[in-house]
Amino acid sequence: MSSTTDPTGPEADVPQLVERTREFVRTEVLPVEDRFDGDVTAAGGDDLRRQLQAGARERGLLTPHAPVELGGLGLSMVGRARVFEAAGTSLFGGLAINAAAPDEGNVHLLAHVATPAQREEFLAPLVRGDVRSAFAMTEPAPGAGSDPSALTTRGTRVAGGWRIDGRKTFITGADGAGFFIVMARTRGEAGDRGGGTMFLVPGATAGLEVGRHVPTMDRSMVGGHCEVTFEGVVVPDEAVLGEVDEGFRYAQVRLGPARMTHVMRWLGAAVRAHEVAVEYAVARRGFGSAVAELGPAQQLIAENEIDLAATRALLDVACAALDAGSAAAQETSIAKTFGGEAIGRVVDRAMQLCGGLGVSADLPIARIAREVRPFRVYDGPSEVHRFAISKRAAKAARGRLSS
Amino acid sequence: MSSTTDPTGPEADVPQLVERTREFVRTEVLPVEDRFDGDVTAAGGDDLRRQLQAGARERGLLTPHAPVELGGLGLSMVGRARVFEAAGTSLFGGLAINAAAPDEGNVHLLAHVATPAQREEFLAPLVRGDVRSAFAMTEPAPGAGSDPSALTTRGTRVAGGWRIDGRKTFITGADGAGFFIVMARTRGEAGDRGGGTMFLVPGATAGLEVGRHVPTMDRSMVGGHCEVTFEGVVVPDEAVLGEVDEGFRYAQVRLGPARMTHVMRWLGAAVRAHEVAVEYAVARRGFGSAVAELGPAQQLIAENEIDLAATRALLDVACAALDAGSAAAQETSIAKTFGGEAIGRVVDRAMQLCGGLGVSADLPIARIAREVRPFRVYDGPSEVHRFAISKRAAKAARGRLSS
Amino acid sequence: MSSTTDPTGPEADVPQLVERTREFVRTEVLPVEDRFDGDVTAAGGDDLRRQLQAGARERGLLTPHAPVELGGLGLSMVGRARVFEAAGTSLFGGLAINAAAPDEGNVHLLAHVATPAQREEFLAPLVRGDVRSAFAMTEPAPGAGSDPSALTTRGTRVAGGWRIDGRKTFITGADGAGFFIVMARTRGEAGDRGGGTMFLVPGATAGLEVGRHVPTMDRSMVGGHCEVTFEGVVVPDEAVLGEVDEGFRYAQVRLGPARMTHVMRWLGAAVRAHEVAVEYAVARRGFGSAVAELGPAQQLIAENEIDLAATRALLDVACAALDAGSAAAQETSIAKTFGGEAIGRVVDRAMQLCGGLGVSADLPIARIAREVRPFRVYDGPSEVHRFAISKRAAKAARGRLSS
Amino acid sequence: MSSTTDPTGPEADVPQLVERTREFVRTEVLPVEDRFDGDVTAAGGDDLRRQLQAGARERGLLTPHAPVELGGLGLSMVGRARVFEAAGTSLFGGLAINAAAPDEGNVHLLAHVATPAQREEFLAPLVRGDVRSAFAMTEPAPGAGSDPSALTTRGTRVAGGWRIDGRKTFITGADGAGFFIVMARTRGEAGDRGGGTMFLVPGATAGLEVGRHVPTMDRSMVGGHCEVTFEGVVVPDEAVLGEVDEGFRYAQVRLGPARMTHVMRWLGAAVRAHEVAVEYAVARRGFGSAVAELGPAQQLIAENEIDLAATRALLDVACAALDAGSAAAQETSIAKTFGGEAIGRVVDRAMQLCGGLGVSADLPIARIAREVRPFRVYDGPSEVHRFAISKRAAKAARGRLSS
Repeated sequence: MSSTTDPTGPEADVPQLVERTREFVRTEVLPVEDRFDGDVTAAGGDDLRRQLQAGARERGLLTPHAPVELGGLGLSMVGRARVFEAAGTSLFGGLAINAAAPDEGNVHLLAHVATPAQREEFLAPLVRGDVRSAFAMTEPAPGAGSDPSALTTRGTRVAGGWRIDGRKTFITGADGAGFFIVMARTRGEAGDRGGGTMFLVPGATAGLEVGRHVPTMDRSMVGGHCEVTFEGVVVPDEAVLGEVDEGFRYAQVRLGPARMTHVMRWLGAAVRAHEVAVEYAVARRGFGSAVAELGPAQQLIAENEIDLAATRALLDVACAALDAGSAAAQETSIAKTFGGEAIGRVVDRAMQLCGGLGVSADLPIARIAREVRPFRVYDGPSEVHRFAISKRAAKAARGRLSS
Repeated sequence: MSSTTDPTGPEADVPQLVERTREFVRTEVLPVEDRFDGDVTAAGGDDLRRQLQAGARERGLLTPHAPVELGGLGLSMVGRARVFEAAGTSLFGGLAINAAAPDEGNVHLLAHVATPAQREEFLAPLVRGDVRSAFAMTEPAPGAGSDPSALTTRGTRVAGGWRIDGRKTFITGADGAGFFIVMARTRGEAGDRGGGTMFLVPGATAGLEVGRHVPTMDRSMVGGHCEVTFEGVVVPDEAVLGEVDEGFRYAQVRLGPARMTHVMRWLGAAVRAHEVAVEYAVARRGFGSAVAELGPAQQLIAENEIDLAATRALLDVACAALDAGSAAAQETSIAKTFGGEAIGRVVDRAMQLCGGLGVSADLPIARIAREVRPFRVYDGPSEVHRFAISKRAAKAARGRLSS
Repeated sequence: MSSTTDPTGPEADVPQLVERTREFVRTEVLPVEDRFDGDVTAAGGDDLRRQLQAGARERGLLTPHAPVELGGLGLSMVGRARVFEAAGTSLFGGLAINAAAPDEGNVHLLAHVATPAQREEFLAPLVRGDVRSAFAMTEPAPGAGSDPSALTTRGTRVAGGWRIDGRKTFITGADGAGFFIVMARTRGEAGDRGGGTMFLVPGATAGLEVGRHVPTMDRSMVGGHCEVTFEGVVVPDEAVLGEVDEGFRYAQVRLGPARMTHVMRWLGAAVRAHEVAVEYAVARRGFGSAVAELGPAQQLIAENEIDLAATRALLDVACAALDAGSAAAQETSIAKTFGGEAIGRVVDRAMQLCGGLGVSADLPIARIAREVRPFRVYDGPSEVHRFAISKRAAKAARGRLSS
Repeated sequence: MSSTTDPTGPEADVPQLVERTREFVRTEVLPVEDRFDGDVTAAGGDDLRRQLQAGARERGLLTPHAPVELGGLGLSMVGRARVFEAAGTSLFGGLAINAAAPDEGNVHLLAHVATPAQREEFLAPLVRGDVRSAFAMTEPAPGAGSDPSALTTRGTRVAGGWRIDGRKTFITGADGAGFFIVMARTRGEAGDRGGGTMFLVPGATAGLEVGRHVPTMDRSMVGGHCEVTFEGVVVPDEAVLGEVDEGFRYAQVRLGPARMTHVMRWLGAAVRAHEVAVEYAVARRGFGSAVAELGPAQQLIAENEIDLAATRALLDVACAALDAGSAAAQETSIAKTFGGEAIGRVVDRAMQLCGGLGVSADLPIARIAREVRPFRVYDGPSEVHRFAISKRAAKAARGRLSS
C-alpha cells in the first residue's frame, strides 16, 4: 500500500474530460432523470445502468478513477473532484460513468489492497461495469454505526476458510450486487478497537440473504439501502481482503477518499439546483423587476455562490493532501462536514428562490433536496466528524503546551 | 365586521380540549397516518376525511373554531393555538377535526363576512364537514402570487351577475371542493392596488375546470394543489362575498389568522418529530452512553426546545393581538416567519438526531420534513414577510425622527 | 418562602410606569452615558449613581421591584419585564432606578429569605439606594463557576458564629459594596451537590479584601467585577441567610429571576441599538435610495425585529411562570439562552447597518456591543443552559416511554 | 500593467519564511501587544513601528511583498497568504514586517502603476519603512463609501498641475503619513461611473489637514482612521498616479489584493484566538473532565477548525487566480465575505470557550474581537460584496439562457 491514490494517468486531460462529462450528462442522462423524477428503480434500475454506462463507455468516460491498466483513466483525487462534480449534475450521473457509491469506493479500495487474483475476479469486472458491488459494514443497533468499534458480525476460522455470521443494514446497492466486501470481527468483542477483517463474498453465496430495503427518502441508488443477513456464510482463505484483523485500517483507506467523492457528486447536484434556480430568478418577474434583482433573492444567490466555492475549495485541499499520500483525516472530515451541510443549504435556498415551483416536481430541486439530505447522516454524520475534528485540535493544543 | 375573531365560546375548556384532541389524534388518527406514510390520497382521500371527522364529531371535537351557533366551540385565536397544535401532531389531525387549510380559514372568513343566506348555503355545510372548499387567489406567473396586486383574473359585470375569466394555480383542496372563494379583479389593471372582489362559486359551475395537480412534495392535503381555469363562469349578484372591490381587504381578514393556524398545525407536527427523536435518543445507545447524553445530541435537543418555545410564544402574542381586534400585521408576520423557519429547523434536527432511521420511513420524521418544507413558501414566503416587517420598522423610525 | 415573586403592588400602573421610565432615561440618563461612552467609572461611579438615583426617587421610579412596604412598587416579574427594558435603553438605566445587577437580585433574594432583623439591616438601605451590595459565589478555577457544586470557599463553625475562608472572582460591584452575600461550603467537599450556606458579610469586615478588578470588556457596572479574598472572616450566627446548608436552594430563588431581569435590561440596550440603527438607515442614502430601502438592510432590520419580539415573548412566558410560583427552570433557561444570543445578534446587526459609524463611538452601538457580549457568559453560559434544557427534555421523554 | 501580481522572487522559501515570521512575532511582537492590550498608540505608535521593523529588517523579514529589486522578497499573493497569516498572529505583526494596511496595498499599487520617478520618491522609502502612507478614497456621507461612484472630492486643472478640494474620512494611517494617495473626481459628477484620478500628495502639502481620529473600536492601526480635509491643495502634473480619469481602474488593482491581505492578517489573529482558547480548554477542568472534552466545547472547537480551514482554502483560490493575472472579482469577493464573517465567528467562539476569562483582558481574545469586528465593514461590507456576487451569478445565468 505505497500511496492512497493513483497519480492521474497520462490519458487524462481533466478540463476536457469535465467538459465532455457535463455534455454527456446534459444530453443523455438528465432527460432520463427528469422523466422519472430521479427514481432509479422506476427508470429501469440495472437496465438503465447498463444503458447509460454503454453511452459513457462509447465516449471514453467510463470508470475514470480506475487504474489505467484496467481500462480507467487513473484520475487522481484532484482530477476526480472536477469530473465527478460534472457527473453529479445529474442524480444518475455517477451511475452513468460507473463512479457511483459504493462501487467507486470499492474500486479504490480493491486497487490498493486486492491480490492479483482478487483484482482479476472482483475488480476487473467492476471497472468494466459488468457487475455492481456492496460494502457491508453498518449494522443495526447496537452494532457498528457511527461508532465502528461496536462491530458484532463475526468471522470465525473454519477449515480452509472463514464462517461469517451477523446482520447488516443500510447496505447500499445490496439488492443485485455481484459481490460484497464484508467487515466482520475476527478478534475481540464488540466495543474493542481493531480486530476487524474484510471478506470478499459473492452475492450468490449460501447463507447471504438480502432482506428489506430500508425505506429511505432518497431514490437514486440502484440496489437500494438494504438489510442483509449472513448466516453460516463460508468463504475460503482467499476471500480475505488484505490482512486478517486489519480491516479497520483498510476501511480508512476507503473512507477518506469515498467521503470526498460523495462530496464531489453531491456538489454537482447542488450546482444544478443553484443553476436552475438562478435561471428561474433572472427569467421570472415580481414586485416590478426580475426576481434576481430583489434583495432577498440576491442574498440567497450570493450565499449559494459562497457555499459552493467553499465546498469546492475545501474539497481540493483534502484531495491534494490525499494525492500527496497523507491520510488527510482532518482535511477530509472538514470537507465532508462543511460540504455535506453546505450542499443541503444550497439546495434549500435554491428551492426557496423558486417559490411554489421550487417545492414541486416541475423543477428538479425538490428531488435533489430529497437525495442530498441523507448525506449529512451517511458516511459519518456531521456530529461524529465534528467530534473527531475537535479531538485532533485538542491533541495539537496539548502538543503545543507540552513543548 | 365588528371584530376579527370570536371570543372563545362558553363551552370551551381549552386545556381539557387539548387533552382530548391529542388523545383522539393519538389513538384514531396517527395509526392511519403511519400506515400510509402521510399520503392522504393513498389513505382514502375524502373517504378518510369523512371517517376521521365522524370520530371527531362523536367526541365533540369537530370544527372547534366555528361559531357556537353553527355547532362549533367558538374558540378564540388563543384558544385555537393549543388545540390546533394538538391536532397537528398528526399530519391528518387538522383534517380530522375539520380544521385543515383551506377550510379552516374559509370558515373564519365566512363567519365574518358572509350574508345570512351565504352562511346557510356555504358556511353551515362547511362547519358540519359535509363539503370541502377552496380559496382561489394565487395565479400562474406573472399573476397574483407573493405580490397580490398582480391579480389578472377578471370579474366582469353581466346582466344579474358577474362573469369570471382567468387561471389560478396552487389552489389547495380544489379537486373535489364543494365551492370556491374566488378572487377576481373588478376594477383597474394588473399591478394596481385594490380592485379585487371575492365570489362564492360552487364547484359544479359551468366553465370552472379543475386541472392538473401541481406535483408538490407534500402529500397530506385532500384535493391537492391544483391548477383551476375559469372560462366564462357566470355567477349571480348574491355570489359576491362582502362588497364589490373590497376583496383585498377581506383577504387580510382571512390571511393573518390563517397564517397563524398554519403555524399552530405545523408546530404540532414539529412537536411530534421532536418527541419521537428524543425518545429515540434516550433509548438508543452509542459511544458508551445513551445518545441523548452525548454533547451533539444535547445541542440538537436543546435547540429544538428553544425553537418550539419561541414559536409558541410568538404565536400567542400574535393571537392575543388578533383576539383584541388588532390587524396584528407585524405580529403575524413575525410569528409566521420565525415559526415557519423554526419548524423546519426542528424537524431537520430531529431527523439528524435519529441518523439513518431519521431519513427513512421507519420513523415519521422524514415525512414530516416533506410536509412542512413548503410552508416556508406558502402563505407568504419568509422573504416577503421580512420585507414587510422591515418596512413597518422603517416607518416607525421615520415617525420617531419627525416627532 | 411562600412564593418566588411578589404580585405587582396596587400602586403600579405598568404602561404608565414604562412611559415615565423611558422618558426619565431619555432625558436624564442617556446624556450622561453618551458623554462618557458608557464608562461608569469615568462618569463618576458611586457619585453618578447617587445623582441618578436621586432623580429616579424624585419621580417615584426608584427600586420598583422592591416590596411596597419597603418603599418599592412591588412589581411582579411580568411588570418588571417592561419597566426594566425601558430602563435598559441606557446602559446606566438599571443603575439609575436602582435595578442593576447585583443589587436587584439581592433585593429579590432578601425579600424572600431574610429575617426581619436582616431586612432592617441589609435590605432596607439597599432598597433606598443608601448602599450597594455584592453576591459572592463564583470562584477562580477549579472552584465554583458554571458548575456550582465545585464550591471550595469554606464556612467553618466557630464559637457564636462562622469563619469564612476562600477566594472569589468576578464579583460584580464588589469594590465599594456595603455588604456581600457570600456562598460558602458548610458541608461536604468540592464536587458534592448541596452543602452551601449563604452569609451576609458587611464590606468592612476584617479579613475581607477586595482585590483586582478583572479587566473585562464591559465598563458600565459600578464597583467592577473583582477578585475578593476571605481570610479568617468571622461573622455571627445571625449572618446566616436562611438555613444552614440550604444556600444552593436559595441561589435558585435568586438566579432564575435574576437571569430574567438581566435579559430585560439587555433587551432594552438592544432596542436602543436597533432604534438608532433604523433611524440611521432611513436618514442615510446609498446606491440611489435610503439605506433602509436596500435589500440587505431590510434583511438586517427584519431579523432584528424578529429577535427582539421573540426575546420579549419568551421573557414574558418565563416571567408569568415565575409569577405563578413555578421554579420555571426550563422557561428561564430558554429565555436566557435565546435572549442572550438574540440580543448579541441584534446589536451586531445594528452595527453592521451603520457601517463605519457603527463601529465608532460616534454612535452608541459599539459600546452596547461591548457591554452585552459578556452576558452570553455571565449567569450561566449558553452552553450550560443548553445542557440543562436538553436534560429536562430527555427526562420528559423517558417519562413518556415508561408510561 | 502587465500582470496584477509579482511572481514570488527566487529568494523566497515560503514555508521557512512562515516559520521565521511566526517565531519573530512570538518572541518580539506578541509581548509588546500583550503588555499594551493591543493599543498601538499606548505602545509607542511610530516609535514602536520603527523598533519592530528594525527587528524584522535584521531577520530579513521586512516588506516581503515588495519587488526584489527594491529590497523585498517579491512574494506572490499565494506566497503572501501564509506569511501574512503568520505575521497576523499578533495584532502588531503586520506592522512589524511592514505589511500592514494601508502601506502594504499602497506598495502593491505603486509597484504596478508608478513611474520610475514616483517609485524612487514614494515607493522606495515606503518599502524601506522610512515612511508610512495613506489611501484617501472614502468620504463622509453622501460621498464615496460602499458606492465609490458617489465620489465628490474634486481634482481641477490648474497651470502645471491640479488643485484638489474635498473631505475624506476613515483614512487609515493618516495621522503621521508621509504621503497620501488621493482619489479625486476629474470628470463628471457625483453618481457618475468613472472619472476618478489618483494623486500622490506629500503629507506636508499646504491645504491638506488631518483632522479628528474617528473613535473606532479598533486600536491597533498606527495613525488611526482620520478625517482629512483638502482645501486648495495644489500638486504638479507628476503627482498623477497612472492616467488621468483612470483612478477607479487602479483602485481595482489595489482593492482585490488588499482585501486578500486583510483576510490573511485577520486570519492570523483568529488563529491566535483559537489556539489560546483550545489551550485553555485542554488545561481547564469543569464538570469532571477537561473543558475540551465537553460536548459544547467540542462543537465550538470543531466549528472554528472548519471556519479557519475554509477561509484559508478560499483565500488560496483567490490568490492563485490573482497570481494568474485574473481580476478575480468573484473569488476575492467570496473570500473577503466568507473570511470576514468566519474570522468574527472564530474569535467569538474562542471567547465563549474561555468563559469569564474570554471577555477579560487576561487573555488576548477580547482584544482580538474588538480589532476584527470592523473588518466586516471596512473594504466593502459583506452586504455590498454579496450584492456583487449575486449580480455576477445572475449575469452568468443570463448567459446560459441565451446560449
